[in-house]
Amino acid sequence: MMKTFKIGLLGLGTVGGGTVRILQETRDEIERRIGHRIEIELIAVRDLQRARLVDTDGIHLTDDPFAVVNHPDIDIVVELMGGTTLAKELLLRAIENGKQIVTANKALLAEQGNVLFALAEKNQVNIRYEAAVAGGIPIIKVLREGLAANQIEWLAGIINGTGNYILTEMAKPEADFAQVLKTAQALGYAEADPTFDVEGIDAAHKLTILASIAFGIELQFDKVYTEGITRVTAEDMEFARLFDYKIKHLGFAGRTSDGFSLRVHPALVKKEVLIANVDGVMNAVMVKGNHVGPTMYYGPGAGAGPTASSVVADIIDVIRAATQEPTERVPALGFQANRLTQAPVEPIDAIESAYYLRCYVQDHAGVLAQISGAFADLGINIEQLHQVPNAEKPQDATLVIFTEKVSERKINQALVALQALTAVDSMIQRIRIADLG
Amino acid sequence: MMKTFKIGLLGLGTVGGGTVRILQETRDEIERRIGHRIEIELIAVRDLQRARLVDTDGIHLTDDPFAVVNHPDIDIVVELMGGTTLAKELLLRAIENGKQIVTANKALLAEQGNVLFALAEKNQVNIRYEAAVAGGIPIIKVLREGLAANQIEWLAGIINGTGNYILTEMAKPEADFAQVLKTAQALGYAEADPTFDVEGIDAAHKLTILASIAFGIELQFDKVYTEGITRVTAEDMEFARLFDYKIKHLGFAGRTSDGFSLRVHPALVKKEVLIANVDGVMNAVMVKGNHVGPTMYYGPGAGAGPTASSVVADIIDVIRAATQEPTERVPALGFQANRLTQAPVEPIDAIESAYYLRCYVQDHAGVLAQISGAFADLGINIEQLHQVPNAEKPQDATLVIFTEKVSERKINQALVALQALTAVDSMIQRIRIADLG
Repeated sequence: MMKTFKIGLLGLGTVGGGTVRILQETRDEIERRIGHRIEIELIAVRDLQRARLVDTDGIHLTDDPFAVVNHPDIDIVVELMGGTTLAKELLLRAIENGKQIVTANKALLAEQGNVLFALAEKNQVNIRYEAAVAGGIPIIKVLREGLAANQIEWLAGIINGTGNYILTEMAKPEADFAQVLKTAQALGYAEADPTFDVEGIDAAHKLTILASIAFGIELQFDKVYTEGITRVTAEDMEFARLFDYKIKHLGFAGRTSDGFSLRVHPALVKKEVLIANVDGVMNAVMVKGNHVGPTMYYGPGAGAGPTASSVVADIIDVIRAATQEPTERVPALGFQANRLTQAPVEPIDAIESAYYLRCYVQDHAGVLAQISGAFADLGINIEQLHQVPNAEKPQDATLVIFTEKVSERKINQALVALQALTAVDSMIQRIRIADLG
Repeated sequence: MMKTFKIGLLGLGTVGGGTVRILQETRDEIERRIGHRIEIELIAVRDLQRARLVDTDGIHLTDDPFAVVNHPDIDIVVELMGGTTLAKELLLRAIENGKQIVTANKALLAEQGNVLFALAEKNQVNIRYEAAVAGGIPIIKVLREGLAANQIEWLAGIINGTGNYILTEMAKPEADFAQVLKTAQALGYAEADPTFDVEGIDAAHKLTILASIAFGIELQFDKVYTEGITRVTAEDMEFARLFDYKIKHLGFAGRTSDGFSLRVHPALVKKEVLIANVDGVMNAVMVKGNHVGPTMYYGPGAGAGPTASSVVADIIDVIRAATQEPTERVPALGFQANRLTQAPVEPIDAIESAYYLRCYVQDHAGVLAQISGAFADLGINIEQLHQVPNAEKPQDATLVIFTEKVSERKINQALVALQALTAVDSMIQRIRIADLG
């Protein structure tokens, strides 16, 4: 029998507007799918007088967000306002009021998700958040349900479109970071203050969520090692290309011998790996399961349409789950709340990786021997070493080294030793090489 | 409260063995997810005496498959035996007995799915079939749930690993079809009789299923236009490469002005489109939704581990849905059974496409004018035309033509007209150019 489910929306910005538009434009197709009707009962906006890009005829607007979470007729509260203070307070209230929750707020979940999920568990309410990671790609559903038969070994994602756009442009001849960033800002791909994207904070929020549902661990945003892309140079791009790599800003979550590694940093990826070919503002997440092997999910990571596509898919899921015993619904993190793993997230120097190193060295006899000696002393194997003329500093040579896999602790020791050599004339650039085999 | 769900397995071949192995090896991780236990109660095998590759200690085996579908304690029947006759009879019986169904049988679903789904609907039983298409990629879940907010515009997939392996190898210098097929057979990637794969029948089965859940239409395997890869030559591969294309065997489902187009055929794909870089035995499906835009899903399309990963994910879904009202579960084809679209699947000549054409022509004055005249007469625009020396027939030239988008009816008229010219010295090769923008 057809029922009508009532939505309360918090926020009517880009994604909020997209959500209203999908529910209007795709009403018939959605009804064909679920056999029920979805109606927006009330939307909380910041300024009631502001002009809207979407048609809100017949929808009540309010500037009191608590009116939404306290509204007795609303079944599902959809939070698209962003921020971590008021949004948290509103969602806690909505959960206590027994509302089902859909949110796109990655910062809130990554930083406060444990509290929200615990209260939701207690109140037998589900929180769905497909739109919080990788926009239109249904990666949360894939991890929580589609690959549920697997122990996830690792995942690696291009999960920030701004960063990927910048690195894609920087891979073109004669581009440099500052100039590319300016273009990205002009095109609307980067914010006026781009810190959040280029320093990897946004990606770290998303990685926190992905890691938790991949491994069944608590959300631990503060444990994510985060390194931005601002120090990647055109020269690094050129060397990467020369040796058949692309440089991508990856979020990586994997198992270590004693726990887990969660990290966001630039990485060299062999160009024949599919994810190396994900360019521009597009996102992609590779997931390696112990049974399924390597898989990848690709699509737009931002924008009104893609993000709202995930929001509405969550609304549909919530409606379908309405008659299900709450204990049988897919748990917030994909695992039963009392069965999360307690193994620690390890510090970055506990990882093993191969490394790309680049520096300028004085171009005279004995320097190479000195440098390779420093690696040999630490038992670090060099896979490739290339010395090329340095166009900018003719008295120097540029040295590019690819190491074999070694512990980050060791490579740090090597960097200290090398940096102390008088023959080394620059800061040593160090970029990790991703192992996505 | 922890419950135990009992599985009855039909078939213990590659995928059946993989399913048993996952349920053994990943027992703890699965229990952490669902909070319940899964036990295999009974497995029907063809020959009780045969040695097994998996440990079946503590599991009952029978050579009477009806004992499985009639077993009173079994909750979920998992059909992995293949075939369309006995498997159909068994599943109909299982449905009548109220068992939930999981199957990997694409041929059965594509050819008999409408009957099975109707009986399942009547008996309020769910049929899940993630493993039937693209092995370990959760593409069924993505289409039925993850992209449920979208009207799907089109999808295009590399959904047969054998064919993709062959085309990948043929793209290498000096390879030809017969020789590559032999290697594929030696490696176990192709059957002794490869017809099913290289003629596109297997892909057509999978495409039938994908199209139904993308658009909400009945399964119509007999309406799928199916063309194999046996006539793609090394010469075509070389020309494709020269003009920055790859040739892939694509399953394509899209909307036409009056209905739908369902087709499997070789296609030229621009090499910068991500799916063009999906090589070897890997599968991938691109899906374009009206709100999300272009997305892609990539992974292993066959093999014990990947396919069983999907089988077990389905079992988990069925268990989670056990307390849900049957009418609220995700419907078999993703849309309410009484809301399927009746618009027709149109014949292949109703499509529009750009085309790659190749033929040998007599190398004398006036020939080019004659040929381009034939296109002009029909109002077909040529985008590129290249005449190159023909190494094998020095008196001829090889002509390669890329047309603009035109109706297949018109291109067929053009081919008839051209083929009748005395200057045309060979059959004209025609390969469609995929438009995946």
